[in-house]
Amino acid sequence: MSVRLQIEATRGAARVGKLITPHGEVETPVFMPVGTLASVKGVSQDVLEELGVEILLSNTYHLFLRPGVETIRRMGGLHRFMSWDRAILTDSGGFQVFSLTELRKVSEEGVAFRSHLDGSSHFLSPEKAMEAQIGLGADVIMAFDECTEYPADAARARASMELTVRWAARCKNYFEEHKHEVPWGSRQPSAISRQEKQVLRSAQDDNHWEGTCKTQTLFGIVQGGMDPTLRRESAERTIDIGFQGYAIGGLSVGEPRELTRDIVLSTLEHLPADHPRYLMGVGTPDEIAQYAQSGVDMMDCVLPTRAARHGLLFTSEGKVSIKQARYAQDESAPDPTCDCRVCQRYSRAYLRHLYASNELLAQVLNTVHNLHFYLATMGTVRTWIRAAHAPAAGAS
Amino acid sequence: MSVRLQIEATRGAARVGKLITPHGEVETPVFMPVGTLASVKGVSQDVLEELGVEILLSNTYHLFLRPGVETIRRMGGLHRFMSWDRAILTDSGGFQVFSLTELRKVSEEGVAFRSHLDGSSHFLSPEKAMEAQIGLGADVIMAFDECTEYPADAARARASMELTVRWAARCKNYFEEHKHEVPWGSRQPSAISRQEKQVLRSAQDDNHWEGTCKTQTLFGIVQGGMDPTLRRESAERTIDIGFQGYAIGGLSVGEPRELTRDIVLSTLEHLPADHPRYLMGVGTPDEIAQYAQSGVDMMDCVLPTRAARHGLLFTSEGKVSIKQARYAQDESAPDPTCDCRVCQRYSRAYLRHLYASNELLAQVLNTVHNLHFYLATMGTVRTWIRAAHAPAAGAS
Repeated sequence: MSVRLQIEATRGAARVGKLITPHGEVETPVFMPVGTLASVKGVSQDVLEELGVEILLSNTYHLFLRPGVETIRRMGGLHRFMSWDRAILTDSGGFQVFSLTELRKVSEEGVAFRSHLDGSSHFLSPEKAMEAQIGLGADVIMAFDECTEYPADAARARASMELTVRWAARCKNYFEEHKHEVPWGSRQPSAISRQEKQVLRSAQDDNHWEGTCKTQTLFGIVQGGMDPTLRRESAERTIDIGFQGYAIGGLSVGEPRELTRDIVLSTLEHLPADHPRYLMGVGTPDEIAQYAQSGVDMMDCVLPTRAARHGLLFTSEGKVSIKQARYAQDESAPDPTCDCRVCQRYSRAYLRHLYASNELLAQVLNTVHNLHFYLATMGTVRTWIRAAHAPAAGAS
Repeated sequence: MSVRLQIEATRGAARVGKLITPHGEVETPVFMPVGTLASVKGVSQDVLEELGVEILLSNTYHLFLRPGVETIRRMGGLHRFMSWDRAILTDSGGFQVFSLTELRKVSEEGVAFRSHLDGSSHFLSPEKAMEAQIGLGADVIMAFDECTEYPADAARARASMELTVRWAARCKNYFEEHKHEVPWGSRQPSAISRQEKQVLRSAQDDNHWEGTCKTQTLFGIVQGGMDPTLRRESAERTIDIGFQGYAIGGLSVGEPRELTRDIVLSTLEHLPADHPRYLMGVGTPDEIAQYAQSGVDMMDCVLPTRAARHGLLFTSEGKVSIKQARYAQDESAPDPTCDCRVCQRYSRAYLRHLYASNELLAQVLNTVHNLHFYLATMGTVRTWIRAAHAPAAGAS
């Protein structure tokens, strides 16, 4: 089996359901916390489980450099390496590589770049990005795309979109040929005999094989800059190649928020209703709620975790900058209506003290609260979608 | 009630029992993790509870500067401020102030010093240190002593010891007059009416009062440098003043380990058997086990937590410097015989990756393991002491 979306209810364009993955079910719409280097900064895996995190995102570019894909592959993949049995999604490394403006060179073949850590030279191509992501073994992996910069003129946006489409086809080809190399469980080729491998190969089309040999799922990425026509063409050509899920990339790259919103909404119209839709790298609690209500199934963003480490809490009363002196003697909970383990136990005064004193625990506790807030926000949207089908009160 | 030691079994000079405190019972001999700024760096209070921590140490000097004693007192004391219902011990600030070699000036009255944070001027005296510690409201508080430097000549060691004795008497006087100002629960003066206060005061000698108005306990500190005769005199004169527990201070200040050991063992002989004995700021796992076997009831040290943040793990196989490249692909548990939540879940390879990548979680997980190791070490000593009284196998 690979990943599939089971839609359980809809409300307008929005849908609620489950993403069925080789590592468990994920309630959608879902917000995916970012664990860049196989760790959500400061939060242990058991706390993530307790928070109800069902899927994490990890970054191929960073893992490629440290500790290296081969280290993780040999240890059975990312799930086993980081001791996380639930679902994982990896990005392709494309976004990070393109962020290295001064350190990279793009060609038809791929991207040559220098490490931000030590200046060492590396190369990522569609095939290399697939090889890396198969080695890491996330449940959902992403095509290697070019993230078009903002602003970009029409010719540049088209050329970039077309490169992404050509790379998407190469990703799919490589993935289909190599997807059984994923380093999971007892059924990966490296762990079974050559003879057994032949038996399994011959049974590939059987349902039995489907049940015993789980594979990863590759998502395509729609680009096209800020031009709805190019976005539509990108969506159609990506769908023609054929993926099991579709992402909207190239947003949150500096454009105004209204433009992000317009492009998301217009692009969503061209994505197939029966496949998962993933909006990459967005956004604030309001934005993720809005996009989920518009039909997005999956989102990720560093905002809740990064802001936490800078003392910014998302609460039902809006943003709270916990470093402010006004909270020094404030005995109330960080978010008085929140039922997370942080708000249930600690005061704003204590969190403010930890932050002002540069205590490690500040970053830990702030992150736990913000993740809870984001996850709870998605839970509220899921309830809102299901409510469209609930019997009216008093009806019999 | 205040703190008292209930001895349950002995083996040679060693004793096992319970320290009964206003915030719960503490199995002794006990290792007390250090939570300098009202937080054990990186570890949340629920994890400390899960680890079985029954008493924490916090540092008056640091809290005095940040967030300030008054802030904590107004919020009901340290227990409530940091949301920790179990026992707490505060040091007097003396050790930290004396560490500020360039920034302090000692007189009979006390110590004038400049903050290591911003250079602001402050003054601590026996009375001020008592006032601060009553405001913080730890279960056990410490007399303000002068920590004699090493090396010190005979005249200097004697003068320093005598100053500590005079300060101890001033501490006791202040404490006895002000101990009911501790900001706990519903019975602290600030939270009850003037009339009610009078009623309670008139009942001070009743058992009823003892049951409802819990107070802190003040420990004296034995100094005397590295001279066993001075140590003996210091112990006797401190016991003459009369405290509910006695600490051995002024060790681990640069002297050789064998000398530390000799001074501890000779000083222990002069401490009363029916009162808790606290050895301050010591040591490695081997040392804390040895001292507990020699009759010490309480110890604290920053070693397990500080070493953890520098990638040093204490294990049943000795020290493991997890940053080393040799662990990069080591799938074994940090300590294969350890049942802590870190060793049960993560590999050396993963911890090495977290440390090498400068991930926050490295410090969190390393600290949890080291604390578990120290607490388990004390558990083993307690079992060893009790075993002296266990019926022999096969006996009937």
